Amino acid sequence: MSRHVSPVNDDNVKDVAASTDVVAYMTSLGQAARAAGAVMRGQSTAGKNAALLAMARHLEAARPGLIEANARDLTRGRETGLDAALLDRLALDDQRIDAMIEGLHQVAALPDPVGEIDGLRSRPSGIQVGQMRVPLGVIGIIYESRPNVTVEAASLCLKAGNACILRGGSEARDSNAAIAACIEAGLREAGLPAAAVQVVAITDRAAVGHLISMPEYVDVIIPRGGKSLIERVSREARVPVIKHLDGVCHVYVDATADLDKAFDIAINAKTHRYGTCNTMETLLVDAPVAGALLPRLASGYAEHGVELRGCARTREILGAIAAASEDDWATEYLAPVLAIRVVDGVEEAMAHIDRYGSHHTDAIVTENYALARRFLAEVDSSSVMVNASTRFADGFEYGLGAEIGISTDKLHARGPVGLEGLTTRKYVVLGDGHVRG
Amino acid sequence: MSRHVSPVNDDNVKDVAASTDVVAYMTSLGQAARAAGAVMRGQSTAGKNAALLAMARHLEAARPGLIEANARDLTRGRETGLDAALLDRLALDDQRIDAMIEGLHQVAALPDPVGEIDGLRSRPSGIQVGQMRVPLGVIGIIYESRPNVTVEAASLCLKAGNACILRGGSEARDSNAAIAACIEAGLREAGLPAAAVQVVAITDRAAVGHLISMPEYVDVIIPRGGKSLIERVSREARVPVIKHLDGVCHVYVDATADLDKAFDIAINAKTHRYGTCNTMETLLVDAPVAGALLPRLASGYAEHGVELRGCARTREILGAIAAASEDDWATEYLAPVLAIRVVDGVEEAMAHIDRYGSHHTDAIVTENYALARRFLAEVDSSSVMVNASTRFADGFEYGLGAEIGISTDKLHARGPVGLEGLTTRKYVVLGDGHVRG
Repeated sequence: MSRHVSPVNDDNVKDVAASTDVVAYMTSLGQAARAAGAVMRGQSTAGKNAALLAMARHLEAARPGLIEANARDLTRGRETGLDAALLDRLALDDQRIDAMIEGLHQVAALPDPVGEIDGLRSRPSGIQVGQMRVPLGVIGIIYESRPNVTVEAASLCLKAGNACILRGGSEARDSNAAIAACIEAGLREAGLPAAAVQVVAITDRAAVGHLISMPEYVDVIIPRGGKSLIERVSREARVPVIKHLDGVCHVYVDATADLDKAFDIAINAKTHRYGTCNTMETLLVDAPVAGALLPRLASGYAEHGVELRGCARTREILGAIAAASEDDWATEYLAPVLAIRVVDGVEEAMAHIDRYGSHHTDAIVTENYALARRFLAEVDSSSVMVNASTRFADGFEYGLGAEIGISTDKLHARGPVGLEGLTTRKYVVLGDGHVRG
Repeated sequence: MSRHVSPVNDDNVKDVAASTDVVAYMTSLGQAARAAGAVMRGQSTAGKNAALLAMARHLEAARPGLIEANARDLTRGRETGLDAALLDRLALDDQRIDAMIEGLHQVAALPDPVGEIDGLRSRPSGIQVGQMRVPLGVIGIIYESRPNVTVEAASLCLKAGNACILRGGSEARDSNAAIAACIEAGLREAGLPAAAVQVVAITDRAAVGHLISMPEYVDVIIPRGGKSLIERVSREARVPVIKHLDGVCHVYVDATADLDKAFDIAINAKTHRYGTCNTMETLLVDAPVAGALLPRLASGYAEHGVELRGCARTREILGAIAAASEDDWATEYLAPVLAIRVVDGVEEAMAHIDRYGSHHTDAIVTENYALARRFLAEVDSSSVMVNASTRFADGFEYGLGAEIGISTDKLHARGPVGLEGLTTRKYVVLGDGHVRG
């Protein structure tokens, strides 16, 4: 598979798209990935790490070419009217190339999850049974404008022993092609199959539709991007999807809370960053402490310019803030806006979270042991916290060493997904001529 | 939800089917299950066990009624021309009722997987992070004629803290309704929501289509039955499916094998039972030992009446056996038939398994340490074995204590699925006022 190695300019991308039968092209990627996946299963940790470090060297050597390819993407982006935020995500500079190179070194330094055997136990029949962690096989990743995702996704899939097919945003196609060439050079240098990482070289939107409909070649799809992309992929995929939808996260401050901790957590969970999925969007306050806590918090939020929208009881305490509507309770603002509701106890708080939340990350602030245990056990979210900011819901903060995404699904991987989420476990049985009686 | 409690006879089932809007009915089951699932999440082990034991008592008390309901199903089955094998699977007698009751006691005695926290570790930020095992939520199970599956599926879902919606075969509807009444009585007696176990009371085939299309109410579907059912469910489901397709299992006898062990394993893997998914369907023999092993095995198989079909080299050694076709290599016979191929070493054996196998269970017989390690690491099947019969691939043999099925999927659960496969893990974070810096 060398379709992605030649530097791609505007014109020859159009040629590829025009001249290629999309189904045949995607099928060829799928077949090559399946074959490469079988070879990747048997690779040593040292071999995989050698490829990662070789990729880092090739990125370093290709620095001027990367910047040049990226400049073509940026020029085209400006011409086609991409907004400033999108252009910023698309841009590669020396600092971002440094970060990609550093990322490859970090992934190389991570422990290899493949081959680990859990719970090997002897059974009455005489056999020993355990579960071995092994690669998933072929992973399809669909993402948008940031070209550094190409390196990040490739490195994590490779370290976990998988082949991958990467489909980046068409606005980043020249950057992605240039990065893909470095990745391929690294794979070849380390003696790994070049098709272990394939970047879809055609910009035809139908390519995504095919990628998510080839269960014979692709074991799982990870879409990374906006809600509409993820919803489309989830709806249409015939391959299992590890998806990340909304983060409508809550902090519930119980009547027994230490109000200093509650203040710090409520401020941090909202204001540390506004655009992240683990940012608090609704604050729930137990009625007995609402009068003491809310005015203090309102001043804190005012300093950060956070707009508050409250329930009737909140507005009785805080006065002139907007009323929260039904929609507010279910909204992921991703902005300096916070909905606040006064509730009567943990039951009402948990019912609110269950009804309006997105089962992403929810926290309780309490000094009551029994309530903490209950909240942990019963709140059905991918991360549930006691006396900590929701902003901690993150692969690096959790010690996964890497993060390919945060799953809001329940099956296979839930919450931050690291290398382990890119693997599966099979049973291994060790005997010495044992037969079943 | 009391739709399933009244004893159902042929006529009033038709009435329900005719008078009910299937979508509205299935939606009502889904909503009730979702609500019951939320209650189930908070149940203690003792409460769940009390319900299981109460169900056992109600089955015991309802014995005459169960036999009577089953007799109606059998009569109808004979009238509609069900074959003898199907009628046998459908039949309930005292022994089978004993087994259902005993099964409930066994599930009550199993350790509760819910609430277990793995890997709780302190992070540099000061928080502690671990993963807590929690129920999946709502499980839909679609099965065929055996009415005892109703008890088995209900008990495992309940023990793992889930609500479930069970859709049995229409040929078993009276038996299933009678069993459902006992289950509901047990739930009520233990103070659990009756909707924690709901048996679909309409026989309309469209019910299945709706059950697998309600991701808002159902978290996972487990189809148990023939290949066509499973393929249909997998193709049409909008809810994740834990599925079990073919078992085209292999034993590869390496040149270094102890031929006595190889003989025992090859005979056991084929002849212990013919109709099971972990039965060997193809034997691969390394060329240097084919001449010594195959004639001895052929006599052994002849004693069991197993028909052999071989590759050209096998036929050179064994003489008058049928030639194996391309189709034979990919066939799950579920019968006393075995395909045999002579190969040149482990590479060719693994390539054959990868190409023709179903990634269910494959074994190597060898005394070579390096080959054993390699086969374990590289064969991409849900169970991989060294010097043991493929027949061991089974939840009870593996010590899971129970088995809801064997998954041939890679995500979430792979291989025999016990209680753990009916749960998921969420992250729990314990802090003391910690915020992200």
